[in-house]
Amino acid sequence: MKLYNLPPGMNPRRVRIFLAEKGVELETVDIDMMKGENRTPEFLAMNPMGTLPVLELDDGTILSESIAISRYLEHLHPEPALFGATPLEQAQVEMWNRRMEYEIMAPITAVFRHGNPFWEGRITQVPDFADVARAQASERMLWLDRHLADREFIATDTYTVADITAQCALLLGRNTGTPIPDEAANLTRWWKGVTARPSARA
Amino acid sequence: MKLYNLPPGMNPRRVRIFLAEKGVELETVDIDMMKGENRTPEFLAMNPMGTLPVLELDDGTILSESIAISRYLEHLHPEPALFGATPLEQAQVEMWNRRMEYEIMAPITAVFRHGNPFWEGRITQVPDFADVARAQASERMLWLDRHLADREFIATDTYTVADITAQCALLLGRNTGTPIPDEAANLTRWWKGVTARPSARA
Repeated sequence: MKLYNLPPGMNPRRVRIFLAEKGVELETVDIDMMKGENRTPEFLAMNPMGTLPVLELDDGTILSESIAISRYLEHLHPEPALFGATPLEQAQVEMWNRRMEYEIMAPITAVFRHGNPFWEGRITQVPDFADVARAQASERMLWLDRHLADREFIATDTYTVADITAQCALLLGRNTGTPIPDEAANLTRWWKGVTARPSARA
Repeated sequence: MKLYNLPPGMNPRRVRIFLAEKGVELETVDIDMMKGENRTPEFLAMNPMGTLPVLELDDGTILSESIAISRYLEHLHPEPALFGATPLEQAQVEMWNRRMEYEIMAPITAVFRHGNPFWEGRITQVPDFADVARAQASERMLWLDRHLADREFIATDTYTVADITAQCALLLGRNTGTPIPDEAANLTRWWKGVTARPSARA
């Protein structure tokens, strides 16, 4: 099994943290997006989206999409359960993971893509959309802050993929102009906790 | 168990089709968004996102997010398996469902939200973003058309949640200015097939 990785990317980091929490090491191939290695015919034959991460199974089967890859790895390495331990918990983790994707990751990513010079010429940037997303990102971080007032983790009593998603999104935000607001004390406490885990260095 | 439903909504339709494919009927409560029924303190106490659908379990536990709800229903009613029958299939269905969400549903929804008078005054619309999303929606539909050249369904050999997601997104697009392009013959064939299923009337 082989993991195609983009070292600075938000989504590959989600899978690397997931693996580190499981204590699993995979053969890893770093792809250099700046050299267009994710746009070669060979890479696009694996993943027509040109995105990373990609997991190649031993029989050549390809999986892309961080959460699809992580879910398959959860099946191979069930402990600790990062998608929830019971069917109800699994649904709750899915709900919170999606809230993190839509409410936190989406606006942070939109600010990065539509407001950062890195993407100039790579996509059609709409600066006004970056401004709307920037306001939304702050507002949703304060909502998440309130959710965390009396909780250690986002979805359940333990660390799950919902925490991983939020943590990787907020790391991108920290580096691209949508940091956690100063007044978000609960979110900051949670952030210090999750980033102190050894897996955060993965 | 009770399903809070928004009859015209794209996401509630995903769950209604899912239930119809399972042959399961749930007590359903229609919520009128035009009357603000999804913004009452009672509703927001259930789902702070104010979104639909919402599933209320018999013990009062609340689930939101279509796919989280559907996944829980799959646990209660495993057949037919709409999330994939084996762990690998489940990962492949997850991958394709996410591709449908990010590549098809996201641009169609963006055109609706940022380009349609319905949302004027409800969100901060960015018309330029609607234009970018409109071009992206057509381009991605043609990609999906190529994917379907030699396939009956999107993710596996059977109808899955990936088909449901695409079908509900394309219905929204049909009604809001991003129809399937005329030249997309494979996608049109697939569309005719999935919308001829009895579940499409759910």
